[in-house]
Amino acid sequence: MRSASLAAASPNAGDTAWVLLCAALVLLMTPGLALFYGGMVRSKSVLNMMMMSFIGMGTVSVSWILWGYSETFGPDLGDGLLGDPFTHFGLHGVMRAVYGPVGKGIPAPAFVAFQVVFAIIAVALVSGAIADRAKFATWTGFTVLWATLVYFPAAHWVFALSGYAARAGGWIVNDLHVVDFAGGTVIEINAGAAGLALALVLGKRVGFGKEPMRPHNLTLVMIGAGLLWFGWFGFNAGSALSAGTLAAGVWINTLAAGAAGMLGWLAVERTRDGRLTSLGAVSGLVAGLVAITPSCSVLSPVGSVLLAAVAGAVCAWAVGLKHRFGFDDSLDVVGVHLVGGLIGTLGIGLLATPGGPAGATGPTGLFYGGGLDQLGRQALGAGAVLIFSFVMTYAIGLALQKTVGFRVTEDDERAGIDQIEHAETGYDLGHLFSSGRTNPTHHGRLTDREGAGL
Amino acid sequence: MRSASLAAASPNAGDTAWVLLCAALVLLMTPGLALFYGGMVRSKSVLNMMMMSFIGMGTVSVSWILWGYSETFGPDLGDGLLGDPFTHFGLHGVMRAVYGPVGKGIPAPAFVAFQVVFAIIAVALVSGAIADRAKFATWTGFTVLWATLVYFPAAHWVFALSGYAARAGGWIVNDLHVVDFAGGTVIEINAGAAGLALALVLGKRVGFGKEPMRPHNLTLVMIGAGLLWFGWFGFNAGSALSAGTLAAGVWINTLAAGAAGMLGWLAVERTRDGRLTSLGAVSGLVAGLVAITPSCSVLSPVGSVLLAAVAGAVCAWAVGLKHRFGFDDSLDVVGVHLVGGLIGTLGIGLLATPGGPAGATGPTGLFYGGGLDQLGRQALGAGAVLIFSFVMTYAIGLALQKTVGFRVTEDDERAGIDQIEHAETGYDLGHLFSSGRTNPTHHGRLTDREGAGL
Amino acid sequence: MRSASLAAASPNAGDTAWVLLCAALVLLMTPGLALFYGGMVRSKSVLNMMMMSFIGMGTVSVSWILWGYSETFGPDLGDGLLGDPFTHFGLHGVMRAVYGPVGKGIPAPAFVAFQVVFAIIAVALVSGAIADRAKFATWTGFTVLWATLVYFPAAHWVFALSGYAARAGGWIVNDLHVVDFAGGTVIEINAGAAGLALALVLGKRVGFGKEPMRPHNLTLVMIGAGLLWFGWFGFNAGSALSAGTLAAGVWINTLAAGAAGMLGWLAVERTRDGRLTSLGAVSGLVAGLVAITPSCSVLSPVGSVLLAAVAGAVCAWAVGLKHRFGFDDSLDVVGVHLVGGLIGTLGIGLLATPGGPAGATGPTGLFYGGGLDQLGRQALGAGAVLIFSFVMTYAIGLALQKTVGFRVTEDDERAGIDQIEHAETGYDLGHLFSSGRTNPTHHGRLTDREGAGL
Repeated sequence: MRSASLAAASPNAGDTAWVLLCAALVLLMTPGLALFYGGMVRSKSVLNMMMMSFIGMGTVSVSWILWGYSETFGPDLGDGLLGDPFTHFGLHGVMRAVYGPVGKGIPAPAFVAFQVVFAIIAVALVSGAIADRAKFATWTGFTVLWATLVYFPAAHWVFALSGYAARAGGWIVNDLHVVDFAGGTVIEINAGAAGLALALVLGKRVGFGKEPMRPHNLTLVMIGAGLLWFGWFGFNAGSALSAGTLAAGVWINTLAAGAAGMLGWLAVERTRDGRLTSLGAVSGLVAGLVAITPSCSVLSPVGSVLLAAVAGAVCAWAVGLKHRFGFDDSLDVVGVHLVGGLIGTLGIGLLATPGGPAGATGPTGLFYGGGLDQLGRQALGAGAVLIFSFVMTYAIGLALQKTVGFRVTEDDERAGIDQIEHAETGYDLGHLFSSGRTNPTHHGRLTDREGAGL
Repeated sequence: MRSASLAAASPNAGDTAWVLLCAALVLLMTPGLALFYGGMVRSKSVLNMMMMSFIGMGTVSVSWILWGYSETFGPDLGDGLLGDPFTHFGLHGVMRAVYGPVGKGIPAPAFVAFQVVFAIIAVALVSGAIADRAKFATWTGFTVLWATLVYFPAAHWVFALSGYAARAGGWIVNDLHVVDFAGGTVIEINAGAAGLALALVLGKRVGFGKEPMRPHNLTLVMIGAGLLWFGWFGFNAGSALSAGTLAAGVWINTLAAGAAGMLGWLAVERTRDGRLTSLGAVSGLVAGLVAITPSCSVLSPVGSVLLAAVAGAVCAWAVGLKHRFGFDDSLDVVGVHLVGGLIGTLGIGLLATPGGPAGATGPTGLFYGGGLDQLGRQALGAGAVLIFSFVMTYAIGLALQKTVGFRVTEDDERAGIDQIEHAETGYDLGHLFSSGRTNPTHHGRLTDREGAGL
Repeated sequence: MRSASLAAASPNAGDTAWVLLCAALVLLMTPGLALFYGGMVRSKSVLNMMMMSFIGMGTVSVSWILWGYSETFGPDLGDGLLGDPFTHFGLHGVMRAVYGPVGKGIPAPAFVAFQVVFAIIAVALVSGAIADRAKFATWTGFTVLWATLVYFPAAHWVFALSGYAARAGGWIVNDLHVVDFAGGTVIEINAGAAGLALALVLGKRVGFGKEPMRPHNLTLVMIGAGLLWFGWFGFNAGSALSAGTLAAGVWINTLAAGAAGMLGWLAVERTRDGRLTSLGAVSGLVAGLVAITPSCSVLSPVGSVLLAAVAGAVCAWAVGLKHRFGFDDSLDVVGVHLVGGLIGTLGIGLLATPGGPAGATGPTGLFYGGGLDQLGRQALGAGAVLIFSFVMTYAIGLALQKTVGFRVTEDDERAGIDQIEHAETGYDLGHLFSSGRTNPTHHGRLTDREGAGL
């Protein structure tokens, strides 16, 4: 028979395998998002769009290892607002620790792994709001600033459960008792509000609302969507941090939501436009998944279908708001992630049921006779993250714009940001159409990997 | 020491992680198939081809949650033909149950997850037979009808083992004792026969056999093939429902079969045409994987190599039948999945050995001295699914064609189904070739995500 | 309480799930590499480039099952140089065995699965050195010869730990006590040295250093890089063969290294060329991952960041060497894998610390007060593999070139190897630009899957 102390020294292999593989799935979501976003822009800016995601995998990972983990899950500095960034600087004291209740733990570095991939994709999501027009070096700096000043604090509020990884954790989860199983506030609402702020700071693309800006490669968008759904099972079900009944139920709800979100969006398209687009299908898929992210642990499968169908339909309508209000949220971070995140976070107050994967440990929503209490808590938590994120991001964006500059010139934007910022073009298909002639429209000098400038 | 009742309440974490992750891998196969199929059609229909796979992820998932799981694994209605679709409607009574023998179980929702992804990809496979010419709304309806009337019943026959998930299960597995470890009958033969039926109902593409219909993007085909092989490890090895020696042996056989199928097909190409194509390599890969799907638990690794090499070679020949017999099975669902599925299902009667992953629990094939008994059973099971699927699908297809219409007009087909049915084109590379000019050949009005019609 | 013998008969489910899924992740790296490499060549040779990776999945898998596993992990024939290729021919006696210490084992076929995917990708890596110019049939034969004569022996030296899978194992790991956790010598240095040898045997591409040879599709390169990083978690963390603290720590170091490698390469680009390219970002990512491959078990996270940043920066410089010395290592197998592999293998001698994932079981590097001893051992092991691989590969390549021919003619190379060797083109986008006209530049006769020659 295993003694408790032995068990603490030797975490459960099944749970460890689960969390480490889920973390890898979530990491893959960021290249998936790069494809999803990259296919949606014009061919002259696909690389820049993808690079805005990829660079965050570099900068946020290093920031996380050095100070981010500690800032998020280190001992709380007081009032639940921030962890101590120095305690576990460079993951000091973490790599061989065990995380979780005795006898059922996972290695602490597995928890570290699972959390960093959320930070990475949150940053990447923001980039969709400012397609085609941001200086890449400034964006690179922004990823570090935003992670440090916005994401890590918000993650502390929502994910740092007291008495678990930290001495005492964040206020939203511990004091307000908001349910946010996998990041509806800290990932979706946070990224959506930040996207709105940056879209306002940078202004509209040249030609916004006047020139066609169609997706240049919808096959990339669909590959990306496929990888996103795949990874989202890690995202949501992995958040159980254990491979059991809770994780399995969450898996089902994640499937239900992607499916119903797709159908909800397409239903609006069918009614409004008389056709069913591929872009609509995958946008609805994502909208449904966004909505289920906070709520996947407390909804029934049928509740998940309902919530996600509503999210798909509402987001199909919400992506039109940018034209009505005149802000260029280029790839609909607001319309899908902010709106979908709000629907999911507030939906818990309505649809939460003890029949969900978390069973009787969760709250009961209004529709199941649970009163308005939880709905109020969810609204407070969502609002707090929304306002914090918007204000902070607007300030960071403005500071960067006024100092180093955030937006490229109009000429550069017209020429294409890939050539101007990266000295590359996404495609060079000249060999298909003539003998050895390359693209006729290069404006800049393109170079080989070694900078040889052929 | 764990008591039996405790163990039942707390399923094994390792097995649960295994099944949930395998389910995610299998889900990823459908986007993989969308790429595999999408790359094979002409550029003017790539989105429609991909959407025929994606929409099934929506419709089949919701159908499964509402009535499909119960219809497949609910208590048998008598005679092993169908489960009761109402018992577990909306997954009632399933989400917190445990599935499997006491002390070695997985959560019931993990089993639900693993099974639904098979239903999804079976539907998607069928679409390959009717590329470029199906009304998308009709296809959407077809996915629900086919899942409900063909797939769920067939899955009940083959996968609903008595005394396991259901009170009493399906006749092919329980009465006929057919071996079909991961779905050679219910997925491969079923989809292949259905594809043949639909190809006959819809008729040939305009220009079939007269105009070149080359794959427009073989890189997509190869990405898709890579994702399919990756997912197939989940498909086959995950079917063990437990991470142990059986799953590991199946993994090896799945590798062996993909490899040998590729080599078998290429050997035919080399002999017949004097070259080795990428399309042939990945087609052979899939043919080998199809053949090993039912048989992976009872063959030795060397047996797997032999079976798959034969499957690759035979399928390389079988894909030519459509031209000889004049049916337009556009992407060779018959030539690869029906033929490969038959080879694998019947091959068990020849090559099954106690030296395979399942050990002494499986049958012994003719070549190992086991007589003709198992071969006869396999043939009966395969034939039953084949005939049932063909007849039912033909009837469903015809009913749809006569009522709402299944096939687009010749003009629409020539113009390109992406523009007509989805108001989109797969690629818009105009920015690469001139300053801001988009594709010159749009016939329809293309719209942005919000339907703004720029 | 489980008895030891019961445990041996029933391997740990968590560890088994872990190893089998990691093996699937590593298998996916080869299609990922096919994309990574395929996007980097010109559009007229993308399929050939991808096929050089895919064919190895076929040939190496079959070779492994028949004799490769036994040659690598079968009983040592004497002096630690080679295992007996006949003992486990066809995986005889392996499929139902258990591997590992009693009570904590995995099924032997899971170990077989995990090892074969390393052999597959090692072969595929080599192909990057000879893009656009190798006869495909000769390459196919080369994959078998190289695996058998170079990879399997080297893997025996480095991976066949005495008293574990084999009676007695290879000399580098058992006698020299080199640390190579996941294959810095046997995969990276080995493939890099082999690539150099083949590049010399085959000579430069027509137009090398004179004509632009830009990547034709950087989106493929980035998809490939994303899949490579995803798979690399399986590659490195899976090498723990158990899901616990060691695997989790290795996961973190693998993240750290990919991130820091990307930043290191981009820093050089910024300084040297004034811009940050997507190709540079993903090249740095790979360089960092190469360097951490041998060292991921013995470095701290901060050590991993440092090592990978150096690797990224040095490789960014090293890829220029081919122009200085005039060898056409087309896709920088030498500059990234040989150089990065050396940095990682030697870096262990400097940066290894008991604070790493392996804890006190590993060596202590020079910078942590461990002296020069381990550095010397690492240099010996690295040098042995490098020289062995270069000499053997050069001999195999030369023998093939002198007998069946290895290089295509200059005319064929100019026309494009996809059409000449595979009778295919990667893309056929004609339908996007006119009504039904296909690519105007086909030089050869292209055929459908069934060889019908439309």
